[in-house]
Amino acid sequence: MVIRPAGAEDAAAIWSIIGPTIRAAETYALPPDMTEAAAIAYWMGPDRRTFVLEEAGDILGSYYIRPNQFGGGSHVCNCGYMTAARAAGRGIARHMCEHSLNEARRLGFKAMQFNFVVGTNERAVRLWQSFGFDIVGRLPLAFDHPTHGLVDALVMFQAL
Amino acid sequence: MVIRPAGAEDAAAIWSIIGPTIRAAETYALPPDMTEAAAIAYWMGPDRRTFVLEEAGDILGSYYIRPNQFGGGSHVCNCGYMTAARAAGRGIARHMCEHSLNEARRLGFKAMQFNFVVGTNERAVRLWQSFGFDIVGRLPLAFDHPTHGLVDALVMFQAL
Repeated sequence: MVIRPAGAEDAAAIWSIIGPTIRAAETYALPPDMTEAAAIAYWMGPDRRTFVLEEAGDILGSYYIRPNQFGGGSHVCNCGYMTAARAAGRGIARHMCEHSLNEARRLGFKAMQFNFVVGTNERAVRLWQSFGFDIVGRLPLAFDHPTHGLVDALVMFQAL
Repeated sequence: MVIRPAGAEDAAAIWSIIGPTIRAAETYALPPDMTEAAAIAYWMGPDRRTFVLEEAGDILGSYYIRPNQFGGGSHVCNCGYMTAARAAGRGIARHMCEHSLNEARRLGFKAMQFNFVVGTNERAVRLWQSFGFDIVGRLPLAFDHPTHGLVDALVMFQAL
């Protein structure tokens, strides 16, 4: 597995990963009916660096890193990670999180924050905790899950 | 005092309020060198409703309300408020917050969230608490204050 910066030529492969996750609407607070163009514009926007995880020419995951705020908040970064459904359970998110923490330090960020981790996404919460993230906030019933209904969302944070 | 929707003709008056606050960089995580055009595009963007507080034709404050997230998070709103320095201490923020809570209910939002209340902004924290907001998260050293250095930022929330 290799993780490398994404280029425009990766957009179709990235959409094949993020499209189903956005449509499922279970883990990200994005419009479930977002068009491919809008989703790519978001995921690969000029305010962030986007990476892909590739294995034998096959893209199995993608993540972005960006400043979470501007001005006095720009030393804290934010990331989003998505894994291809066909590669679930193979540690793709773990590889990407590890890479992103190194990348964050390399870029000079002093902390990393996840703004909105859906509380029912327990595997993700445990994974982020295993990397040193603390739950620093709980947003009561802030996410309307398609099957669970209103559930809490978590704010997770770690100093770098 | 009257609070009414802002129009394009209010942009200069709004800039005269938000410009100094953005330049001071003490309470908002926005780029301190933001241009007037970028600041107005942000404050009056198409994703939000923007209001002004007016007294005898003089605009003394402005606020916006928008969904804080998309998709499953779009039932929670977010607001930003700024008061003209010359009108400080006159309850302008209090009037705007009260108006925004009514507006939020009218628009069908189920909760209001402030993502990044600078911890040293104690008057604001107390004001939001007096309106029923709880501190639901604390972001350690997430804001670089021009005189205090790195200080915590707070996440505040209330169900409507």
